[in-house]
Amino acid sequence: MQLSLSTWQDVESYLEHSTGIIVPIGSMEQHGPTGLIGTDSICPETIAKRVGDDNGVLIGPTFNVGCAQHHLGFPGSMTLRPSTMIAAMCDWTASLSRHGFDKIYWLNGHGGNIATINAAFVEYYAQRSLESVPAKQPAITMKLQNWWDFKTVLDTAKRMHPVGEGMHATASEVAVTYAAYPDQVRDMVLEPKIAPTGSFTDAYDYRKKFPDGRIGSDPTQATIENGQELITVTAQAVASDFEAFINTP
Amino acid sequence: MQLSLSTWQDVESYLEHSTGIIVPIGSMEQHGPTGLIGTDSICPETIAKRVGDDNGVLIGPTFNVGCAQHHLGFPGSMTLRPSTMIAAMCDWTASLSRHGFDKIYWLNGHGGNIATINAAFVEYYAQRSLESVPAKQPAITMKLQNWWDFKTVLDTAKRMHPVGEGMHATASEVAVTYAAYPDQVRDMVLEPKIAPTGSFTDAYDYRKKFPDGRIGSDPTQATIENGQELITVTAQAVASDFEAFINTP
Amino acid sequence: MQLSLSTWQDVESYLEHSTGIIVPIGSMEQHGPTGLIGTDSICPETIAKRVGDDNGVLIGPTFNVGCAQHHLGFPGSMTLRPSTMIAAMCDWTASLSRHGFDKIYWLNGHGGNIATINAAFVEYYAQRSLESVPAKQPAITMKLQNWWDFKTVLDTAKRMHPVGEGMHATASEVAVTYAAYPDQVRDMVLEPKIAPTGSFTDAYDYRKKFPDGRIGSDPTQATIENGQELITVTAQAVASDFEAFINTP
Amino acid sequence: MQLSLSTWQDVESYLEHSTGIIVPIGSMEQHGPTGLIGTDSICPETIAKRVGDDNGVLIGPTFNVGCAQHHLGFPGSMTLRPSTMIAAMCDWTASLSRHGFDKIYWLNGHGGNIATINAAFVEYYAQRSLESVPAKQPAITMKLQNWWDFKTVLDTAKRMHPVGEGMHATASEVAVTYAAYPDQVRDMVLEPKIAPTGSFTDAYDYRKKFPDGRIGSDPTQATIENGQELITVTAQAVASDFEAFINTP
Amino acid sequence: MQLSLSTWQDVESYLEHSTGIIVPIGSMEQHGPTGLIGTDSICPETIAKRVGDDNGVLIGPTFNVGCAQHHLGFPGSMTLRPSTMIAAMCDWTASLSRHGFDKIYWLNGHGGNIATINAAFVEYYAQRSLESVPAKQPAITMKLQNWWDFKTVLDTAKRMHPVGEGMHATASEVAVTYAAYPDQVRDMVLEPKIAPTGSFTDAYDYRKKFPDGRIGSDPTQATIENGQELITVTAQAVASDFEAFINTP
Amino acid sequence: MQLSLSTWQDVESYLEHSTGIIVPIGSMEQHGPTGLIGTDSICPETIAKRVGDDNGVLIGPTFNVGCAQHHLGFPGSMTLRPSTMIAAMCDWTASLSRHGFDKIYWLNGHGGNIATINAAFVEYYAQRSLESVPAKQPAITMKLQNWWDFKTVLDTAKRMHPVGEGMHATASEVAVTYAAYPDQVRDMVLEPKIAPTGSFTDAYDYRKKFPDGRIGSDPTQATIENGQELITVTAQAVASDFEAFINTP
Repeated sequence: MQLSLSTWQDVESYLEHSTGIIVPIGSMEQHGPTGLIGTDSICPETIAKRVGDDNGVLIGPTFNVGCAQHHLGFPGSMTLRPSTMIAAMCDWTASLSRHGFDKIYWLNGHGGNIATINAAFVEYYAQRSLESVPAKQPAITMKLQNWWDFKTVLDTAKRMHPVGEGMHATASEVAVTYAAYPDQVRDMVLEPKIAPTGSFTDAYDYRKKFPDGRIGSDPTQATIENGQELITVTAQAVASDFEAFINTP
Repeated sequence: MQLSLSTWQDVESYLEHSTGIIVPIGSMEQHGPTGLIGTDSICPETIAKRVGDDNGVLIGPTFNVGCAQHHLGFPGSMTLRPSTMIAAMCDWTASLSRHGFDKIYWLNGHGGNIATINAAFVEYYAQRSLESVPAKQPAITMKLQNWWDFKTVLDTAKRMHPVGEGMHATASEVAVTYAAYPDQVRDMVLEPKIAPTGSFTDAYDYRKKFPDGRIGSDPTQATIENGQELITVTAQAVASDFEAFINTP
Repeated sequence: MQLSLSTWQDVESYLEHSTGIIVPIGSMEQHGPTGLIGTDSICPETIAKRVGDDNGVLIGPTFNVGCAQHHLGFPGSMTLRPSTMIAAMCDWTASLSRHGFDKIYWLNGHGGNIATINAAFVEYYAQRSLESVPAKQPAITMKLQNWWDFKTVLDTAKRMHPVGEGMHATASEVAVTYAAYPDQVRDMVLEPKIAPTGSFTDAYDYRKKFPDGRIGSDPTQATIENGQELITVTAQAVASDFEAFINTP
Repeated sequence: MQLSLSTWQDVESYLEHSTGIIVPIGSMEQHGPTGLIGTDSICPETIAKRVGDDNGVLIGPTFNVGCAQHHLGFPGSMTLRPSTMIAAMCDWTASLSRHGFDKIYWLNGHGGNIATINAAFVEYYAQRSLESVPAKQPAITMKLQNWWDFKTVLDTAKRMHPVGEGMHATASEVAVTYAAYPDQVRDMVLEPKIAPTGSFTDAYDYRKKFPDGRIGSDPTQATIENGQELITVTAQAVASDFEAFINTP
Repeated sequence: MQLSLSTWQDVESYLEHSTGIIVPIGSMEQHGPTGLIGTDSICPETIAKRVGDDNGVLIGPTFNVGCAQHHLGFPGSMTLRPSTMIAAMCDWTASLSRHGFDKIYWLNGHGGNIATINAAFVEYYAQRSLESVPAKQPAITMKLQNWWDFKTVLDTAKRMHPVGEGMHATASEVAVTYAAYPDQVRDMVLEPKIAPTGSFTDAYDYRKKFPDGRIGSDPTQATIENGQELITVTAQAVASDFEAFINTP
Repeated sequence: MQLSLSTWQDVESYLEHSTGIIVPIGSMEQHGPTGLIGTDSICPETIAKRVGDDNGVLIGPTFNVGCAQHHLGFPGSMTLRPSTMIAAMCDWTASLSRHGFDKIYWLNGHGGNIATINAAFVEYYAQRSLESVPAKQPAITMKLQNWWDFKTVLDTAKRMHPVGEGMHATASEVAVTYAAYPDQVRDMVLEPKIAPTGSFTDAYDYRKKFPDGRIGSDPTQATIENGQELITVTAQAVASDFEAFINTP
């Protein structure tokens, strides 16, 4: 069940039995020569839709441009400033809270979003915490979950790509996008096979250190089949985790 | 050609022959008992993808939550505050400008976005205009185009729905979403057949005046076939208009 | 009755029988070689004062610097950024609402303000709309009315200046300022007689396309007499429209 | 010479011999039972216009709503938040600096504005100070001058109103407004004759302590004649001070 | 009693008999060749701790970086923008108010902070003043007190340094820091002995006019003994003043 | 070497051989019945000073109030909103960058700060990354290091407190504060001996779940001696890590 494809009466009915929602959150940034710019949004969106289809959970719209300033050296990458992203996430949250949603599960596809997502949670909670008597807003609970960060998913990825899974433009995330968009498979030889690793600051520093955009990965291992399996495994993990989340008082 | 489904090298190649991009921009808000909450994002996204497929134009990600405070009385509606939306649009624009895009065509699906989109353009231009010597940012040109606002599209809509096209949850926009998501057609009788019209302020005022969310429309006229035709007609109009836009010095 | 020239007891008495106010809103920007920089503030201020004098309506202070980034290529033009203007308009509105004004009629003199004024309304309404229970602020209604945008005014302008009324530094607005400040009439020959038309982005683009600042107008047609008539006609239209506005539930 | 009543060519010519400007800045707030809400804007505007007329100095538009949160307990009072006022003043300043004005003299009419005006100066200067190489903006100098804060003016006020000049709704400022608007003279007996004095925090505290709005004053002493003399004396002081200001390297 | 060195139960107990707190607020900026960069924070912190020790008053953490853009031409100087400082002070204040503190006494060590501190007070009060019914926040009272601004302190400073006390890097403030950090005494000959005086705008202007950073002072007069006496005298004045402050209804 | 206790010439000299600086960053929040509210600032400040003393590294002022909204249910806790903290950290960073510091090492004492510190880095870097040609600011590198997050420190803590180290108000951090302020040792029996663990949202939720403020810890194990050893071990780790940081190109 997707919010975007629901009527308001559908949502009204849903709220009668559940006040939880999954919101995919990603990024629009280069993912090396074989990865799609939308990778980090496509992954959580695809997985969340599967959860929605299989488990009747409501899936919100995808927050599709995140914090990716370090990728701006590569054409097509887009970013929000963290302060903008915090404001936007607080508006999304306030909107959902207005209707009675009190368990918001952000399914994240981008490591570079983690800090700002958590900061946005704190920004939102702080409004209520600063009140002597909490009158302005009802209490809500938010959770950040990276889609790759379940034991079953990590194990699957390790089995599939024991070498060259990497940190950016990983074999697994590229596989998921290939499963989602089979006509977008890119067949290339990458040089070096496994990209270098390291830390970085701004976009100029990043491009100098990681000339083709990848960090530590060999995404040529990505296949549609692996992507399909990853989606299935991850969707199951998310479904269980979300269930536990909404059942926690 | 979609940015989300491109690699950075794809975008680099595209920029060698064109510095224009179409960005769909919509909203997430109730569209009456038979319309989808994502209607205003689905319409420009669907049309833009058609333009991208048919004409090789690059289509950016969809700015999918807009200014819809007046719809917050209906479950599932979401909004950005205008100040947030201006900040986010400026970040998107600065990202695209960074790569050399200098013609940004925002294909809009929501009347309630018009003011804020135009204000965001002014916010962005003002940075450059306030400099005695324009050093910080290259010049760019932005255009706002509502998808329904072409003579051919208006004529088509009028022919299809001479009565009850309406102002919100229009027969045409609902038709476009049905063409995009044929399994989402809602078959209902609405009472009154044609919704009331009028002005409104905040969400409380809106809900009181328009109890089922529609304004002036009878969206039960919407059909998949009409939606398909509207998509075709609009995509042609957008393609021509975009071509003229990028060719204007 | 002007707020600026009232005591607080005067306002207290006024509020006993009316909670409506007219606030003139304009700009400080070049208006071609014969037009005054303050034109867009002078026009709504002059008209509003007439309405205040003739009808006992309370007239607020003039919001005198608006969104005019595109005019910054011409000496003396001033601008707010839209985000600043939204913040300022919200503060003005919150102040008036605090006292019980719930019908605020912004009489606008500048086309470039329209988007940001509407965005400011949405920013203000959104605070209330985002609350599950509207506790923070009382409901209010705001209206944006461009002074030139009444049928009687458009007809009068068309009769007076059938050719060369124009889009910026119009014959009519210059006439109104001449009526308001008869010692400021500028007698010049302009070349070309009618200025070019077109669209624009930032201040550099504007100045290049419209070298003397006018768009599409021949303001040498402006006379004190025409200005006087326009003030009278517009004041009557505003008075009726405001009356209807405050009487709408 | 007033900016509002100038053409852009007038300003262009002015800038050839002077890059200084006087900007009146005031407030819109209660001034007791006999004082006008616009008092703090009327005073600097009236004095500045006199300076402009007598000395050919360019006078900017009046910044007419300032920081007056403490007066909001009285109908008609309006305020900007300091953060809004800082943003607006910075936009005004950036606009003027864009044209080459590098000496901006803010003639202030409201004690409650002093802190925020000075903070706005610092906000503006800080942009340049934070740059290792000052590239973004040209250097400018700003001065805050309260109109009443000259020895000649203080002496005159003391001679005219040796008792009951007061701190808010002073006899002198009310006199200046009566001279500016002779038809607005209010003839009343006030009780107590001289208002109480003290400090205050927010609007609730202020109204409790100063029930009719005045602080320490007996404004019934105000006369048109005294106002006229005060305008003359102050305009002379401002003219000299401004001359010294623009001649300081 | 210092907040930083208290447990939450200590503060809970304190609040049972007092809802007042002293918050030292300073700056991090050059103080000439013999003065420490932390001078303006060290002084109020040292004095406040003495008051806390001697009188059982609760002392908050030191707000240690203030508004010092004009000092950025000298290595090590740091600044907040006024808008940032206002936001931070409002957060500190809201936190303290949340616990029931309603008398907040800001003991200031830096002249350049005065405007912004006062603007921050107004920003905070304005939230409450703008509400028709003050529901969001309890009323509080804030006071700004410069540590040097008591008659007894001024007299002491004048007796100690009849010549060359100065305006920045004053003999007295340097003496207080030497008393607080006896191992930081700098023994130097300064040339000129007494620094020049004057006004300034941004950091470039300041450094040009005051090449070694001092304004009007001869801080080589500073001694540990004088600093100790100044601390004692000031602490007594602060203690009395704070007592009066919290006892004012 | 502490910035606060240096003159500007000291800093100028330091910059000739090093452009790196350590900035302690902490929080002001409850740390259970035996822990000090300033714990998270005291720890990094104490350790950093040791590094500064032993290794001649410049230590900046302590950023002493951080993100602690979840602790506001306990008297004395203070917080910044993340958006405020980002703005303040960017101002601190811009100030230091202005002088040529290009390696800024934030030594953090509070887990709740991690997200916002990282978001602030991204906010700062983004300004440069968004420029096509990086002109506005020099490149800098920032690092976040939690003081407890070294192998040697974790091992030491584990050896000292094999059980009940905990997550908030840990035995180790309390020990460090006791070593720093030996007169602040609190001798109490806590019930339960080891506090509960779990997740939390806002301040109301936190206080309900963790009634005395601790999470998972038994801080009664803290001793001055353990604190001294922890300071020594951590200072050595920080010194090595900082050395490596500034030597990384």
